[in-house]
Amino acid sequence: MASAATTKNVYNFNAGPGMLPQPVMKQAQEEFCNYQGTGMSIMEMSHRGPIYSEVHNGAIENIKKLLAVPDNYEVLLLQGGAQGQFAMIPMNFLTPETTADYIQTGTWGKKAANEAQVVGNVNIVADTIKDRPARLPNADELNWSKDAAYVHMTSNETISGIQWHTFPKTQAPLIADMTSDILSRPIAIDTFGAVYASAQKNLGAAGVTVVIMNKDFMASGNKNLPAMFRYSEHAEQGSRYNTPPTYPIYLLYLVTQWALEQGGVAAIEKHNHTKAQVIYDALDASDFYKPTAAKKDRSWMNVTFRLESEELENQFLKEAENQGMVALKGHRSVGGIRASIYNAFPIEGAQALAAFMKDFAAKH
Amino acid sequence: MASAATTKNVYNFNAGPGMLPQPVMKQAQEEFCNYQGTGMSIMEMSHRGPIYSEVHNGAIENIKKLLAVPDNYEVLLLQGGAQGQFAMIPMNFLTPETTADYIQTGTWGKKAANEAQVVGNVNIVADTIKDRPARLPNADELNWSKDAAYVHMTSNETISGIQWHTFPKTQAPLIADMTSDILSRPIAIDTFGAVYASAQKNLGAAGVTVVIMNKDFMASGNKNLPAMFRYSEHAEQGSRYNTPPTYPIYLLYLVTQWALEQGGVAAIEKHNHTKAQVIYDALDASDFYKPTAAKKDRSWMNVTFRLESEELENQFLKEAENQGMVALKGHRSVGGIRASIYNAFPIEGAQALAAFMKDFAAKH
Repeated sequence: MASAATTKNVYNFNAGPGMLPQPVMKQAQEEFCNYQGTGMSIMEMSHRGPIYSEVHNGAIENIKKLLAVPDNYEVLLLQGGAQGQFAMIPMNFLTPETTADYIQTGTWGKKAANEAQVVGNVNIVADTIKDRPARLPNADELNWSKDAAYVHMTSNETISGIQWHTFPKTQAPLIADMTSDILSRPIAIDTFGAVYASAQKNLGAAGVTVVIMNKDFMASGNKNLPAMFRYSEHAEQGSRYNTPPTYPIYLLYLVTQWALEQGGVAAIEKHNHTKAQVIYDALDASDFYKPTAAKKDRSWMNVTFRLESEELENQFLKEAENQGMVALKGHRSVGGIRASIYNAFPIEGAQALAAFMKDFAAKH
Repeated sequence: MASAATTKNVYNFNAGPGMLPQPVMKQAQEEFCNYQGTGMSIMEMSHRGPIYSEVHNGAIENIKKLLAVPDNYEVLLLQGGAQGQFAMIPMNFLTPETTADYIQTGTWGKKAANEAQVVGNVNIVADTIKDRPARLPNADELNWSKDAAYVHMTSNETISGIQWHTFPKTQAPLIADMTSDILSRPIAIDTFGAVYASAQKNLGAAGVTVVIMNKDFMASGNKNLPAMFRYSEHAEQGSRYNTPPTYPIYLLYLVTQWALEQGGVAAIEKHNHTKAQVIYDALDASDFYKPTAAKKDRSWMNVTFRLESEELENQFLKEAENQGMVALKGHRSVGGIRASIYNAFPIEGAQALAAFMKDFAAKH
């Protein structure tokens, strides 16, 4: 059976959709047309039948285990991606009379705030979007509003390569978009009103979004909404209010099984730090490379840097690709180089990139 | 490479998620880990890169070809299923001051009306939900409102097995939920304000929803909504406002390629009629089986009937399953037997069921 490893040796640095664990891909391919001897694919089965139910509930249970989710939190599997959440959160928890606090540290947090502004009042707690090097605000720069309905933040910025290593303490329920670093490290779920993540970086394939939400907070949501957009409705129906995206959820199930087999998120975190450190060491070895994120805020998921000129960056990308290191180009809005190294990315790829960076710097 | 056909001979009568065409499943399995020699899966690639773009735009173009979609209509690929549309339609096109007309011929149309009632006023044009045999309203039973914002209907009822064979003429833009019969027959798109369908019956796997909408109608939508829920925003972004469900869209692309290779929807319609007729002939051959849908409104997609007793129905289901005919149980809300025979379902499966029905009737 053909797999990425045997047919072509490629290191996939895509920022998302990103690579999935190779054992997951291999298993999914093998049982693609015939799941557990049924003669059918898992995607061709009823979403309420016993076989799919095991997968669906298994994915939820695995997430609870991996993140030690307390009993007073729900784990929901929804559609619409993180940007669906940008809209659903204010629709559920904000009104024209109330205010929500948004911390803007990048493009995604700003988009989230824009969606909320349609529904109610938004207070920008801090805005570091234009700061270079990219950085997070200090505690004394945070201008909280009184009686905020909630606080929204982005835990890791894929574009600029910065990440919150400790979370701010808030009065209001804290909601974090963890799309690009969920399952990459342990987090204290009970310090959040909600966390959410679309799947295509650390959890699997695009099409399913995981939401972990405090039950009391959920119950406080707006009732005067179409059922489809009420969190409480999805919770009551065990995330089968309507037909869920069964194949993306099946992949989520396999990825979370794989994460448990790796030793859980503490082991994954350690591995992620080792991987990122290999690249950051190469970055800091000379002044040939120009890091674009403040050192204290560097992301373990996305390593960003520039070279002397765009011409040299293009040369870098071309030579890297020739050596099987693909998708290292920075986000279209900022340019430069970006190495996205989510949970599934192998240490060998980080080592290969570091070695290439050393050679390339020596050569130019 | 294992496929359903070679490993276990199963006829999958699932009502949805339903079976996919076998050549599609085989191709998807073969290129699962290594798409076009890239060393990556299509699901591991950027949703804005050239390789995925071909798939994404290809799916949209195929739908335009298959349904002869006029230039003044948009084809959108969204998330959230048909029930996402139940909510998005009134959010875009209904206000507390206006009224929408809903034709209720089954569970799904009623759910759609319930969602609209949260947003504005709903006039139930007709309600045949409780009628037995299941049936559609006659033209003289339709109580239209004046100046409706739109009319909503369900073109095929999967639960009761009835289907509109000619569509009502309406003053207001007509919106049809075609989840269970899209691509099963030619339709005159220009007689609709919009049609929509989630993918898991005739278009592929759960997780992507196709919306075909008149551009003028779309432009008339409510601007004061989060961007994520505005049709116009998705149209402007070519259905890549945010990360689309790339793997379900890839499957949609393969299924629509397959549909074109079958000769398009006219050829598929002919094949569907042949398939359904084989089963309806078996149904009508004696009074052993009790059809549950009015003869004039019978669906070509879902054939529904009952037997003398629940005990006998269970016996029927058990013996059918022993012969490899699975998922013939009627919807949990109505019981009985249901054979769902969407586009991908093979004629051999219909013939096998008809032969089994004859034998079973003779035996009992």
